[in-house]
Amino acid sequence: VTASLAQRLLAGERAAIARAIRLLDDADPAGIDLLRDIYPAATQARVVGITGAPGSGKSTLVDRLIEAFRARGERVGVAAVDPSSPFTGGAILGDRIRMQRHAEDDGVFIRSLATRGHLGGLSASTLDVLTVLGAAGFRTLLLETVGVGQDEVEVNRVADTVALVVAPGAGDAVQTLKAGVMEIAHLFVVNKADRPGADEVAREIEQLVAFQSHGPGSDAGDAGTWTPPVVMAVAVEGRNIDAVVVALDAHADYLQRSGEDVRRRRDRARLAVLEAMRAKMDAEVAARFPGALDQAAERIATGASDPRAEAEAILRSLNKP
Amino acid sequence: VTASLAQRLLAGERAAIARAIRLLDDADPAGIDLLRDIYPAATQARVVGITGAPGSGKSTLVDRLIEAFRARGERVGVAAVDPSSPFTGGAILGDRIRMQRHAEDDGVFIRSLATRGHLGGLSASTLDVLTVLGAAGFRTLLLETVGVGQDEVEVNRVADTVALVVAPGAGDAVQTLKAGVMEIAHLFVVNKADRPGADEVAREIEQLVAFQSHGPGSDAGDAGTWTPPVVMAVAVEGRNIDAVVVALDAHADYLQRSGEDVRRRRDRARLAVLEAMRAKMDAEVAARFPGALDQAAERIATGASDPRAEAEAILRSLNKP
Repeated sequence: VTASLAQRLLAGERAAIARAIRLLDDADPAGIDLLRDIYPAATQARVVGITGAPGSGKSTLVDRLIEAFRARGERVGVAAVDPSSPFTGGAILGDRIRMQRHAEDDGVFIRSLATRGHLGGLSASTLDVLTVLGAAGFRTLLLETVGVGQDEVEVNRVADTVALVVAPGAGDAVQTLKAGVMEIAHLFVVNKADRPGADEVAREIEQLVAFQSHGPGSDAGDAGTWTPPVVMAVAVEGRNIDAVVVALDAHADYLQRSGEDVRRRRDRARLAVLEAMRAKMDAEVAARFPGALDQAAERIATGASDPRAEAEAILRSLNKP
Repeated sequence: VTASLAQRLLAGERAAIARAIRLLDDADPAGIDLLRDIYPAATQARVVGITGAPGSGKSTLVDRLIEAFRARGERVGVAAVDPSSPFTGGAILGDRIRMQRHAEDDGVFIRSLATRGHLGGLSASTLDVLTVLGAAGFRTLLLETVGVGQDEVEVNRVADTVALVVAPGAGDAVQTLKAGVMEIAHLFVVNKADRPGADEVAREIEQLVAFQSHGPGSDAGDAGTWTPPVVMAVAVEGRNIDAVVVALDAHADYLQRSGEDVRRRRDRARLAVLEAMRAKMDAEVAARFPGALDQAAERIATGASDPRAEAEAILRSLNKP
């Protein structure tokens, strides 16, 4: 059944995509086999991260970008990562519902993802979903991440190009940029550019970019050849979206010319291996030693042991056949 | 040397704390032995997470809380997690420098932490630093996290009590709350409460709290007994900090009465075991099979293999003695 699912998926069949994602969500062994069959095809896709603080208008921009890429015939996959509650496991979709207007379009596939309860901002399933969509022929993948923090550092390791969306009026826009997020962006979109203060925000970002590319921490090789552009847009009215697309394409060209794309693909693969190792280890502990973690936690909580000793004991048990 | 370092640390000696943190930072084996010796003492500490968007005034609030806890004789440890650049490894301290006025006070220990480049918002070293400070007799530990995102979900698993700081004027304050961050807070601080819109923000949060505690996703057991209070404060002027402290103490009382504190201590231990297992696995791969991850990444990037197959191959090699 898996072989034919892989074929249907590679042919871009919608039902096959949904089924593949479900298999992977359920950690079904058939999903693992499937991933192996489709992985090579998936490496062709270009992943664009769209990130920024809540309220910056990321979802609206994603919606407009879908429109723009569709207009030139590209098939577009979207993975939107929600911060989820560790308690309910639920995810609040918010205005992402707006994107549903693309639901009828066979050239668009949108998937909302909860970040999982385990350590690691972008869940392993995010990588899997990108793989599935890429293999199904969605060569442009938009990865929307909510919030500003660790997720944004990770989006940079998953995406080929990262666009950081900033809105004026959020008093903290530039402070956010200073807080380290700056360095992960290949492109800045000052959204809601019809609002007061937009020009100022754009100017401040340009100054930060200039400072960065001459600062002590800059990588001369990269910084010398790619200076993150700042694009003004009003996503809600579809204004200047073309300029965003031009900047995204320019970065894709740069990646290819500089050989950066190969390096990034390798980094992504490395990350995926580490994630897979962790998932495998967690699953093996759960299967072979159910309750071992709970017992370890109990001993530690009562002061009878410490985490590293318990970790080593569990790993030793795992190594015995 | 380790035994005496542990003794000096348990006695609260400053130089021993700094040395212990350095050992752990360097992943020195002596640090691992040390942790084992001090872990039981560390379980006594109370960890308070202070979180919120950039610009909400978290650092200023932390500064005031140090003052308040010191006034009643408590020893206070602070771990501030910076979003770090994956490129420079650097961390921008920003207004955290303000806290340096406590540098002369022997009852205060402040440590700025970079989030590490590896997957996982709060680095393993964050847990280690909290352990060291707790063992050194800092019974009140403030964990300041920057940003809104996955970090905030994790702070909830590390901290006993999480205070979410919100400032009016940041247009996205309430939208941030809706984006799932809401559910991790035990307490809301509307900071900069002298600014226009503060009352409205507080009212909106109270409505969200009320909705949450009756909503479908609520856990009747907990939600029925602890309703997150909303406290107005002006941290920069030290106004109403007492009310924040009262609310923090009330939550600590609640945790003890309900037995939640025992459960949380177990969860924290469980997380620490998982982290230690991962760190151990990563270190073993690096030591025994240097280059294995890079070679795997190369095969995957060229479409010759897939991450799970490579992960399994590496794990198989590890299991051979």
